[in-house]
Amino acid sequence: MKLYTNNEVLAIFERTVAQMPTPEEPQLLYAPIKYGLDVGGKRIRPTLLMLAYNLYAEDIERALMPAMAVEIFHNFTLLHDDIMDNAAVRRGRPSVPAKWGNNVAILSGDAMLILAYNYLQRTSSERLPQIFERFNKMAAEVCEGQQFDMDFETQQKVSVVDYMRMIELKTAVLLAGSATIGALLAGASDSDCRLLYDFALEVGLAFQLQDDLLDSYGDERLGKKIGGDILEGKKTILMIEAFSRANEAQREVLRTTHLRSDLSDAEKIVKIKALYDELGVPERVEQQIAQKFQKAIGILDNLSVASERTAELRKYAENLVGRKS
Amino acid sequence: MKLYTNNEVLAIFERTVAQMPTPEEPQLLYAPIKYGLDVGGKRIRPTLLMLAYNLYAEDIERALMPAMAVEIFHNFTLLHDDIMDNAAVRRGRPSVPAKWGNNVAILSGDAMLILAYNYLQRTSSERLPQIFERFNKMAAEVCEGQQFDMDFETQQKVSVVDYMRMIELKTAVLLAGSATIGALLAGASDSDCRLLYDFALEVGLAFQLQDDLLDSYGDERLGKKIGGDILEGKKTILMIEAFSRANEAQREVLRTTHLRSDLSDAEKIVKIKALYDELGVPERVEQQIAQKFQKAIGILDNLSVASERTAELRKYAENLVGRKS
Repeated sequence: MKLYTNNEVLAIFERTVAQMPTPEEPQLLYAPIKYGLDVGGKRIRPTLLMLAYNLYAEDIERALMPAMAVEIFHNFTLLHDDIMDNAAVRRGRPSVPAKWGNNVAILSGDAMLILAYNYLQRTSSERLPQIFERFNKMAAEVCEGQQFDMDFETQQKVSVVDYMRMIELKTAVLLAGSATIGALLAGASDSDCRLLYDFALEVGLAFQLQDDLLDSYGDERLGKKIGGDILEGKKTILMIEAFSRANEAQREVLRTTHLRSDLSDAEKIVKIKALYDELGVPERVEQQIAQKFQKAIGILDNLSVASERTAELRKYAENLVGRKS
Repeated sequence: MKLYTNNEVLAIFERTVAQMPTPEEPQLLYAPIKYGLDVGGKRIRPTLLMLAYNLYAEDIERALMPAMAVEIFHNFTLLHDDIMDNAAVRRGRPSVPAKWGNNVAILSGDAMLILAYNYLQRTSSERLPQIFERFNKMAAEVCEGQQFDMDFETQQKVSVVDYMRMIELKTAVLLAGSATIGALLAGASDSDCRLLYDFALEVGLAFQLQDDLLDSYGDERLGKKIGGDILEGKKTILMIEAFSRANEAQREVLRTTHLRSDLSDAEKIVKIKALYDELGVPERVEQQIAQKFQKAIGILDNLSVASERTAELRKYAENLVGRKS
């Protein structure tokens, strides 16, 4: 039974996106959808769905419709998030609301969510009701995660537990749902579906924590601007861990530094990172990422498939979290 | 086989809405959904779906899940429309964006659309794939209609044909889809499904034209404020018909009256309505409504069910369009 690599899966998926038909009219409804999907991103959700499918079945094209559904759903969330966050730039280009205005962004986002369901519906499977149910649950949870994230902005104190629950909903369940849908479609057992859900959930959590870490401790040579979260005063895992370990004077620094007009951006970043370092925050977060990553890799061994078949999912997790198992 | 009346169907549906479980948390995600659904409205889409179902099957409770889906979908469109239209009031109360802000309205609207699909998925039927497909098509078309409507605001000239196509998409297909889903679920033939689609489409068009007409020519004693469309300079069927019959001087009046600061609101309304009357616009629109209504009623005779079974659908159309067949 043919095993596809991460790159092969990605190539098959990109061909499908490129050939996606979109209606011409009304232009302001469909152009933003195409604009959002064309520019790419890492396609981590459809790749995961297709790799999970390929554990059990060879005809990977059959998984393309739900793979499109999860990718389009993800891009829908980005589109509406860009309105709510007032974000002018997405993937190096003007965001849809910046380019077309909020009303177009609201409505084309709605049409995009409906388009995701349209692809989901085109999945040919006796298990469509289960796949549909799984997709709905995942979609609702992503909205819950986004609302909790917005709630955090006005909350004085956010616990690590609250934060982990928020990123589970906002980020990880979409990966977990994608993996499960791929497995369901391929006819995997309930037990394997659950294991793949758990695998992808841990990968998703590790991925989000890594994303938080890199925002403050990434390599500027890789082209990403460092310190954005610090300058926004965002409640990331770093900020929350720091807060839980800080004394009252240090908490005041964590709360107020990003608001100070007497410091340059660079000075604010240096100041907060020095405090993070002093409190042992990056080590703590590294440790959490490593734990989740190892837990994820360990789950793969419990699947009912030959271990050589899970190699690509292992690589997938390594690529996503940026470490070796 | 028991035949339910319009009122009985409505009562069964309202009980289901009242018992709808909604999660407590996150409160800002789910409270606006409940707020939007509780307040009612006429429930014309779920009633139609259930009446269409009852043509062929007695166990009307089976149609409650898709009936909830179309009602929740409709309320989702109102919620997002209220953001796009900057509408402060809906059904006599503050709109969701006015009460909670645009971000909450965007996200709870998204969750509402997902909730609609959740109810749709709970429809127990071998025909779920067809019902799902029909729902998706209808949902996409409603978005297209809303975009065309927004496009009209900046278009100099809108033809009657363009306008009819817009209201077909924005209003009528949701009725047509509701009727078809009810019939599909009840196991109706393809031919009957198509006939019910056409019936509901004509009723939906007549309903929207009637709505336009009443906005300018309604009875203020019924509690509705008259002339809102005129004061907004909205491109309704009245304005478009008037424009197509007007000479250049009259067109100038149609284009500019709502912008004039030297006239009171009441004077603007009197002036435009006088011109409508002069151009024979209300008669023309009445005629269109009557045509569509009669066409709809005529279609009912072609259904493969005994004619006494269609009595409630006839009454439904009469109530909605406000005339007797």
